[in-house]
Amino acid sequence: MKHITSPHNAIIRHAELLQRKSKARKKEGLFLIEGQREIMLGDHGGFELQQLLVCGSILLNTEDFEASDVYHKININSNPEVISVTQEVYEKLAYRTGTEGVIAFAKAKSQQLQDLKLSKNPLILIAESPEKPGNLGAILRTADAAKVDAVIIANPVADLFNPNVVRSSVGCVFTVPTATGTTSEVVDFLKSKNINLYAATLQSSERYDVMDYTTGSAIALGTEATGLSQEIRDAALKNIIIPMSGAIDSMNLSVSAAILIFEAKRQRDFK
Amino acid sequence: MKHITSPHNAIIRHAELLQRKSKARKKEGLFLIEGQREIMLGDHGGFELQQLLVCGSILLNTEDFEASDVYHKININSNPEVISVTQEVYEKLAYRTGTEGVIAFAKAKSQQLQDLKLSKNPLILIAESPEKPGNLGAILRTADAAKVDAVIIANPVADLFNPNVVRSSVGCVFTVPTATGTTSEVVDFLKSKNINLYAATLQSSERYDVMDYTTGSAIALGTEATGLSQEIRDAALKNIIIPMSGAIDSMNLSVSAAILIFEAKRQRDFK
Repeated sequence: MKHITSPHNAIIRHAELLQRKSKARKKEGLFLIEGQREIMLGDHGGFELQQLLVCGSILLNTEDFEASDVYHKININSNPEVISVTQEVYEKLAYRTGTEGVIAFAKAKSQQLQDLKLSKNPLILIAESPEKPGNLGAILRTADAAKVDAVIIANPVADLFNPNVVRSSVGCVFTVPTATGTTSEVVDFLKSKNINLYAATLQSSERYDVMDYTTGSAIALGTEATGLSQEIRDAALKNIIIPMSGAIDSMNLSVSAAILIFEAKRQRDFK
Repeated sequence: MKHITSPHNAIIRHAELLQRKSKARKKEGLFLIEGQREIMLGDHGGFELQQLLVCGSILLNTEDFEASDVYHKININSNPEVISVTQEVYEKLAYRTGTEGVIAFAKAKSQQLQDLKLSKNPLILIAESPEKPGNLGAILRTADAAKVDAVIIANPVADLFNPNVVRSSVGCVFTVPTATGTTSEVVDFLKSKNINLYAATLQSSERYDVMDYTTGSAIALGTEATGLSQEIRDAALKNIIIPMSGAIDSMNLSVSAAILIFEAKRQRDFK
């Protein structure tokens, strides 16, 4: 087993690059997953793990371990190369230092709209140009709980494999089917599948709870700052709004998404 | 107008103490509000502002200003003492450095259950022992949008005037009526007002959407880690659950709160 003791080691520097740079992640089709549960969910979700960086003293309470101990401990089905790293090296990379003890290099998966496998009456969540990784992560967590058919990112600004998305989704970025495309591509995709588009927006919109989401439905949300684009609003069957009556007429994006998605789930009797 | 140039000034050290120490906030009945909109909401919400620390170059684009310029700029109705501080001093205190330019000393208000003014069929959100200020802030933001009668914190762990609660609530901690008490006090209070208690919990619970929230209703949520106490579950009319069907059977606390509260709002026709 390889053992890395220097934070200047090329593998560690490569990992840091993938943490920091969206461009590097895209170019190489690689990203990092930190944490035992997150790596397990990635593995079970069909993401290929290439290497595991393991701090034995944190993950296994010993520096004397074999690769199979790691596979067993984090409950993965694949057998990626295991590289042992010192606590100093681990803590240089890790967000949650002193816990977890394992970071994976993983291969990104296709985000093609055409590769989505949809049910007969799909329920889809669309986030247009979401800016905050924390919001996107929270949306993915809700999408997992609701078991939607897919989360589609229209006109993506950040990439899905940003470490903050992985972390704030508590690994749900691996359990929820996702795809990305330009807004035009997303609109065309929905049309081709006969899926009704509902656009959450303030302009000339009707109450969200009077719509029927029991047939194929996609609910689109824009950013908290600027909302949805004209293009997606024009393409919508209906513009919908959550009535608000407080001092501040705004809700967190992931909270709005949850209210809309669970109204659809309620109408579908949670099936 | 007083002008503070040293970060070691006693007023600045006092401010830092209030930021850091819940004990100091409680003992003195004072806390800090950072940000123009937050201070305006505090003022309009009946919180007495005692002093404003103003960095003129940030708030007003000039270091030559009078107190009335500040009142006008941040749109407050009271006339607290204005103290000018240098940018260096401001940035030592501020979370959002380089923006806003104003921090207020404010007086805490009573959090007595008995002081709550409730409507005829109140809708109340109860958070038991919430641990994360960010979650509590997000809940207050949703509670504002839904215009609930009150948010009650049972067995509080953190105080409501923690800077992270103020910030993550985007000032809704000042717009939503709040109260705190032990779980026993909260349960007794609800009984005395004939308000039905619904406890969000996994144990022997029924679907949240089959309940009737159109009469006086309180919806209680516990922490993500440990849920609600036995005491509050025993006191509930019904235990309720949001059906989840994903890989991860958990949702963010503020997201769950939003789904439950907006189901109640939907049943009440958003009135």
